[in-house]
Amino acid sequence: MEETTEHPASCSVTGSESVGLKPEAVILANGEYPVHPLPLRILAEAKFTVCCDGAADEYIAQGKTPDIIIGDGDSLSPENRERFASIIHYVSDQETNDQTKAVRYLRQRGFRRITIVGATGKREDHTLGNISLLIEYMRSGMDVRMVTDYGIFVPARNTRRFAAQPGQQISIFSFGASELQAEGLAYPLSDFNNWWQGTLNQAKSAEFTIRCQGDYLVFLAF
Amino acid sequence: MEETTEHPASCSVTGSESVGLKPEAVILANGEYPVHPLPLRILAEAKFTVCCDGAADEYIAQGKTPDIIIGDGDSLSPENRERFASIIHYVSDQETNDQTKAVRYLRQRGFRRITIVGATGKREDHTLGNISLLIEYMRSGMDVRMVTDYGIFVPARNTRRFAAQPGQQISIFSFGASELQAEGLAYPLSDFNNWWQGTLNQAKSAEFTIRCQGDYLVFLAF
Repeated sequence: MEETTEHPASCSVTGSESVGLKPEAVILANGEYPVHPLPLRILAEAKFTVCCDGAADEYIAQGKTPDIIIGDGDSLSPENRERFASIIHYVSDQETNDQTKAVRYLRQRGFRRITIVGATGKREDHTLGNISLLIEYMRSGMDVRMVTDYGIFVPARNTRRFAAQPGQQISIFSFGASELQAEGLAYPLSDFNNWWQGTLNQAKSAEFTIRCQGDYLVFLAF
Repeated sequence: MEETTEHPASCSVTGSESVGLKPEAVILANGEYPVHPLPLRILAEAKFTVCCDGAADEYIAQGKTPDIIIGDGDSLSPENRERFASIIHYVSDQETNDQTKAVRYLRQRGFRRITIVGATGKREDHTLGNISLLIEYMRSGMDVRMVTDYGIFVPARNTRRFAAQPGQQISIFSFGASELQAEGLAYPLSDFNNWWQGTLNQAKSAEFTIRCQGDYLVFLAF
């Protein structure tokens, strides 16, 4: 059974950058603008930044310039729409949201390792949609994670090992995974059929392993 | 096939109180304190209020007194712990969260129709847990809904009709429902296997019907 080790430590609160997992690109999505120091630092240190257009005005107001702005342009101030016309990438597809448009843009340009910030905290159905889309991005070949003001979401498939801090609060959300088991977590897993069932677990040491067949999301709380 | 009509209009932004759906009790949960006028009004007009203890200090600071405070008491200020000792209901069960303790308390005392406010907006795994627990409360016989700063979550089973405003944004989250179909929504439903698939739909008129076998959540955005 294949085992890969996941080091969300590259996004840990302590800030240690392990094993070169710094993202190739960062997406600032249309949720609440981050306030936690970690997503703010990830945004500040991004090598390539894509702003969904609902977030671009605030990003620009802080004296920064994104590499690309994605959306239908409607959420941008007229001033910024004109000033940044050369980097605005209009996508009119009504079937996908701006976060997905940004991921597709990056994938088409060869980016693989991306981090999404600012994707949660407003309308709850948008939050649920944005979080669950991580599974689709993984399925399309992207190495993606989401960093919020409260923790990190990592989509995963099959058996995988994760770095953690002893005592760190961990939640697991199954997307059809079967034979779910954990090593190194405080409470046993099972084949969940409701979201709450995998929440509020805890890492017992500096790493844990999820064993299963199928797809799931891991949330590592700060 | 049984059809019941759901009137979230009792919680509508316009505030019309239809068909006596005013809740018998309101739970103020441990998420972000509401700021939208609707959950605030529901809280202000509650006939019976249960505060999860993480929210009680703020509720009390506004000059209000809950009927019951539920939790382990740890999140309460020492001053309020003493002052409100007579209404604090300590539940030490580590297997459930405070929101569920509050629902169980109310169920045991014969309450059925309850509204939960302040349950989202902090840690995303808590938000996901709290939202999905609505399904369990429904299964236990409670008539429950959650009102956030952005909309209303209603748990439902099998075919059911919902009141809406024309153009209102609607999201459907399946919890194992099969043969999912809609009448009166802009986009067709199917047997979803990821959360995002049922988001961003729209009511075409003043009511819509979900047809299926099984359990699901409806989110009606303000």
